[in-house]
Amino acid sequence: MRNAFAIGLDVGGTRIAAGLVERKGRIVRETKLLTPKSAGPFAIVDAIVAAVTEITNGVHPSEIAGIGIGLPAQIDFTRQSVEYCVNLPLAGIDMRGLVMSRLKYPVTIDNDGHTAALGESRYGAAKGLKDFIMVTLGTGVGGGVFIGGKLHRGSRGFGGEVGHMVIAVDGPECPCGGRGHLESFAARPAIVRAARAAAETYHGSSISRLAGGDAEKITAELVIKAANDGDEAAAEVMSLVGDMLGEGLVGLVNVLNPQAIIVGGGIGESCPLVSRRAAARIAAEALAGRRDIRVLTAELGNDAGVAGAAALAFEDHDSREGIH
Amino acid sequence: MRNAFAIGLDVGGTRIAAGLVERKGRIVRETKLLTPKSAGPFAIVDAIVAAVTEITNGVHPSEIAGIGIGLPAQIDFTRQSVEYCVNLPLAGIDMRGLVMSRLKYPVTIDNDGHTAALGESRYGAAKGLKDFIMVTLGTGVGGGVFIGGKLHRGSRGFGGEVGHMVIAVDGPECPCGGRGHLESFAARPAIVRAARAAAETYHGSSISRLAGGDAEKITAELVIKAANDGDEAAAEVMSLVGDMLGEGLVGLVNVLNPQAIIVGGGIGESCPLVSRRAAARIAAEALAGRRDIRVLTAELGNDAGVAGAAALAFEDHDSREGIH
Repeated sequence: MRNAFAIGLDVGGTRIAAGLVERKGRIVRETKLLTPKSAGPFAIVDAIVAAVTEITNGVHPSEIAGIGIGLPAQIDFTRQSVEYCVNLPLAGIDMRGLVMSRLKYPVTIDNDGHTAALGESRYGAAKGLKDFIMVTLGTGVGGGVFIGGKLHRGSRGFGGEVGHMVIAVDGPECPCGGRGHLESFAARPAIVRAARAAAETYHGSSISRLAGGDAEKITAELVIKAANDGDEAAAEVMSLVGDMLGEGLVGLVNVLNPQAIIVGGGIGESCPLVSRRAAARIAAEALAGRRDIRVLTAELGNDAGVAGAAALAFEDHDSREGIH
Repeated sequence: MRNAFAIGLDVGGTRIAAGLVERKGRIVRETKLLTPKSAGPFAIVDAIVAAVTEITNGVHPSEIAGIGIGLPAQIDFTRQSVEYCVNLPLAGIDMRGLVMSRLKYPVTIDNDGHTAALGESRYGAAKGLKDFIMVTLGTGVGGGVFIGGKLHRGSRGFGGEVGHMVIAVDGPECPCGGRGHLESFAARPAIVRAARAAAETYHGSSISRLAGGDAEKITAELVIKAANDGDEAAAEVMSLVGDMLGEGLVGLVNVLNPQAIIVGGGIGESCPLVSRRAAARIAAEALAGRRDIRVLTAELGNDAGVAGAAALAFEDHDSREGIH
């Protein structure tokens, strides 16, 4: 069937995932490879081409609506250019052009927080919602804002950086260089830092046990496991993440008055305590009339990146063809 | 000429201003009266009717496109109902219906931060801008968000409450009951509080002199006058207002990536230091690619409320008639 599939690519700092995705979001083929991070941008393009070639083997080109690529970067969406990229050497590289010249499918690139929001909107927890805020908690904190049924990219496409709202003037330094941003409290490095301190204070905490007594081996995933198993110190660390997330969201709920918040990313999806605390904080702190906003957990899990990027490709294809 | 005018009403905690406004924003007639605050909602409706009757004397009804009313309240815009109102006894009162039944013109009500944004968009500093954030600094901090050339009201119409973003977890109490919101640093009460403390520390400050040595007589206007005249203590107070405004705006600039910020309200328009400091803070703290955002001063001044409410009436009229 013509344009029955899109190719979704999730290019991360560690791995590249590529999937062949049906219109309804089912990933029918998938492949993953390590991101050749230090080999330069062309090696990343080579890896993308190899992954796409593998998953499209035997599929007729007319069946493919296009390629969507989610990047951990600030993208000028209209110009389809990578403007800033902290974790990969892609700033200033014409990723869209390079991939398109090698693969002959239409290519659309976007920020990975945006593709996550598109994916949840089309296939996940945000289905049917016109106004919502997606926030992804992982190595960083990102997201996307849906307004009136459409992703709001802003004047240059840089919108959605939910992690970079100031919630604590003169707070801890954020990886972006600012101070007291949500990301400096709610992403992996902050969780690990807080858990190391907690493990020192609470001697009986299972954080230390799970890390084999080695503070260097504490990871965010380990802290979440301990918290989900009822460990008090770990629960305290993750409660603070939820509280800080809530503080940041209070502002967005008051300014944008969305229907719902979707909490995703590796951290957000695996620790229900985070969404619960964030919802409680919003209930206590937001203006009247919006305190009962729904705070939902993202549903796409590990598929979020690939399915979201495919959603981007379908959207772009359908708007080119005038399909709504 | 048919529908050449709209009536704009700015209903504040202290005064009601009503104006007969041309399509291009010129206010051809205006009247002001004290808000009969303690006499109940019907007295407020009576005052509105009296003001409108006065300024429409001799104007043929067909020349009037409608009445727009800006209220210091949370309005469910779709239902046109007043949901919450702190400073006036209007919550739950059908203001639109009551005024319409007495005056026979179409009536539209909205939050006063929204009418300020509409006014600047149509007649002021935001003319031609599709994506901007309006922030009004006065007795409270309010505002409005324009996205894609339209005011973004949110799922229930409660959007735009720029003053209620958390910028300091566990910060000072906000009049809304929350903690550390922008309003708790940047509105009149916070300015007066900070100026009283500053006047005690800096004995030579002209704040004390202007207030006749009586700390109870210090007002925000007096502090701004002293700051604009170069008084060091006053400049420090107003610099902090600008810095805190900047901290709040960093988040919105990162999440919404607007073209510009418009700073208005009595405080914002009379103290250039505030916008200047806010712009500097954004330049230092926002993510790359948006640090040079324009921070403009609102242009409508004392006319903002009336002209903005008239803009609302024109917009509503034109969308009813299918004029774009």
